[in-house]
Amino acid sequence: MTQNHSFGEQALEIHKKLKGKIQIQAKAPLQTAEDLSVFYTPGVGAVSSYLAEHKSETNEYTIKHNLVAVISDGSAVLGLGNIGPEGALPVMEGKAMLFRELADIDAFPIVLDTQDEAQIIETIANIAPVFAGINLEDIAAPKCFAIERALQQRLDIPVVHDDQHATAIVVLAGLINAVTVVGKDHAKLRVVISGAGAAGSGVARLVQAWGVSDIIMLDSKGIVSGDRSDLNDEKKELVAITNKQNLSGDMSDAIKDADVFLGLSQPGVLTSEHVGSMANAAIVFAMANPEPEIMPEEATAAGAAIVATGRSDFPNQINNVLVFPGLFKGLIRSGVQDVTTEMKLSAAKALASVVTSPSVNEVVPSVFNKSVVEAIADAIGEAK
Amino acid sequence: MTQNHSFGEQALEIHKKLKGKIQIQAKAPLQTAEDLSVFYTPGVGAVSSYLAEHKSETNEYTIKHNLVAVISDGSAVLGLGNIGPEGALPVMEGKAMLFRELADIDAFPIVLDTQDEAQIIETIANIAPVFAGINLEDIAAPKCFAIERALQQRLDIPVVHDDQHATAIVVLAGLINAVTVVGKDHAKLRVVISGAGAAGSGVARLVQAWGVSDIIMLDSKGIVSGDRSDLNDEKKELVAITNKQNLSGDMSDAIKDADVFLGLSQPGVLTSEHVGSMANAAIVFAMANPEPEIMPEEATAAGAAIVATGRSDFPNQINNVLVFPGLFKGLIRSGVQDVTTEMKLSAAKALASVVTSPSVNEVVPSVFNKSVVEAIADAIGEAK
Repeated sequence: MTQNHSFGEQALEIHKKLKGKIQIQAKAPLQTAEDLSVFYTPGVGAVSSYLAEHKSETNEYTIKHNLVAVISDGSAVLGLGNIGPEGALPVMEGKAMLFRELADIDAFPIVLDTQDEAQIIETIANIAPVFAGINLEDIAAPKCFAIERALQQRLDIPVVHDDQHATAIVVLAGLINAVTVVGKDHAKLRVVISGAGAAGSGVARLVQAWGVSDIIMLDSKGIVSGDRSDLNDEKKELVAITNKQNLSGDMSDAIKDADVFLGLSQPGVLTSEHVGSMANAAIVFAMANPEPEIMPEEATAAGAAIVATGRSDFPNQINNVLVFPGLFKGLIRSGVQDVTTEMKLSAAKALASVVTSPSVNEVVPSVFNKSVVEAIADAIGEAK
Repeated sequence: MTQNHSFGEQALEIHKKLKGKIQIQAKAPLQTAEDLSVFYTPGVGAVSSYLAEHKSETNEYTIKHNLVAVISDGSAVLGLGNIGPEGALPVMEGKAMLFRELADIDAFPIVLDTQDEAQIIETIANIAPVFAGINLEDIAAPKCFAIERALQQRLDIPVVHDDQHATAIVVLAGLINAVTVVGKDHAKLRVVISGAGAAGSGVARLVQAWGVSDIIMLDSKGIVSGDRSDLNDEKKELVAITNKQNLSGDMSDAIKDADVFLGLSQPGVLTSEHVGSMANAAIVFAMANPEPEIMPEEATAAGAAIVATGRSDFPNQINNVLVFPGLFKGLIRSGVQDVTTEMKLSAAKALASVVTSPSVNEVVPSVFNKSVVEAIADAIGEAK
């Protein structure tokens, strides 16, 4: 019986008791005919007429100014895979709860009854007028890339596939501090990334932009290399920035002498033997959720110097919850539409620096550290 | 300077100050790593896995069980016409506020960046998994009929175009009491309905189902009659239940000797002269919003015995706000998917009976009468 299992039991119980983690409240009392006359008819007619003529001021008069949609088609939920909209809903609702509690942002969960790329794009574009930002979530690669790109071109609000960008930022923040703790030069690191989907791809690009040149990626078929004939366009692009030695093979081939393992894949892909074959002072970020690629105690026993997971119940929680609240706060506050590599590097460094004395058990700050959201939001605004 | 104008000024001011009338809140505190472990990762994974396998229990574990979408394409907002999604948003947000305050229902406003019938249907069907009910709102006729019908067939949750059904219920409730006050036999009434869009059509059908056989409808071109060549399918259907004498002409022709005027159209269509030509003890419901077809003082001066509007700042507010909170509460609570004529008649009678002693200035109860929502919700459940 793992600890995860016991949290699962608790989670089922409390979700059933609460019947939802968020609720929609009025911002003012509605008690008199006069209240009704200003919030509803006839008064609201003046606001409607005004906004019809001054569309760009919609933010000033409605919930839109602070409202983020958290949208998934349920095709890649946590590490659970394609479990559909119903399975995705508790996660999206959880994110909405975190947006409120951590960043004071109104966020609303939407789960889609379609997994078709074109339908997803049309649907989101059609409901966009009510939102200040779109947080795409847990949408499978490679369609997530095309969906994000199409919506960014079509809409005038930020559209961010969280799994790509927020995950990349938090992983890099943790890596910055971990490398400091073990005293290595980041430019000389050998980094193995397990998972070449949305998250793995985003992490690879950002780690590379930070200055790491030796990156090896694996997907479920093994090392991603130019010799393979089964790569989609996104993976072909990744070949250009990874695997300089043109390795082929599986995890055993990739992980030997690696300094860093970054897991964004599935439980079980990393064994004690793999960790044992890594370079000294190895860094293992096993971030699959809810079950990590290797359990922390096992990785430590096998010789890893620093171990992190995505979970709340172990030290070093490298989870995009450290990023998305501040990221959207920064985007909305600064009126930024596109998240650039510069912004992501800046946000990762800002997040890393919230930890004043990084250590083996503290490579990233706690989710409850009140400085996190503002540090990231400011970094986004400054890199604008 | 009308009273409406002053409410408009106040409304603009308070909307700008609040920047939205609703907000999204967490239902439980999020303060510790353990909270995060049960509401988010790893615990939420167990809820997601469970719901993926038990989709029908999504209501038991998420906000879905009590969540209504209030959706408009902005094509027929109040009496303001086709003012687009931005103009529609304050009204939809206002409805969400009313759902919470009056019926304790979570409701979320969606305004669409498309006015295409097929796109609207696809978009709403695609976002439906998160909702327990869909309140279509302020969508122009005749597409509103096709949209409602298509979604009712496609989805397993109630889909109600409020302008058709809730409006019909509240108008009939007011009419039931008004007829009692003036002491006429409803089967012998001559009723003139101005407006043959979604609301006018729904009212005509329900008033006819109640037992009124002499109904004359007008649209912007005049009396709706079989002699006209410009009628859409919906209006052709209305010809079958209205205008038995096959009248042609304008308001002057229709209103002469009428017992009841039901306005769901535009300001100015009813004049003092028109009211003066009605039968004795005339009933005038001038329900266009925000500006009624005729101002109450004018209608009274011209001889109307009972006058009602849709507004909060006059007596006899015949507004669908009296119905939609209880209607959706009843639909959700009783697991009803389709609103039948029987349910609407039952709800109208229940709403009328909340007024214990109907009078000239009280043909419907106050929106703040705590019995209203339960009376309607129960009526829906009982007529199931």
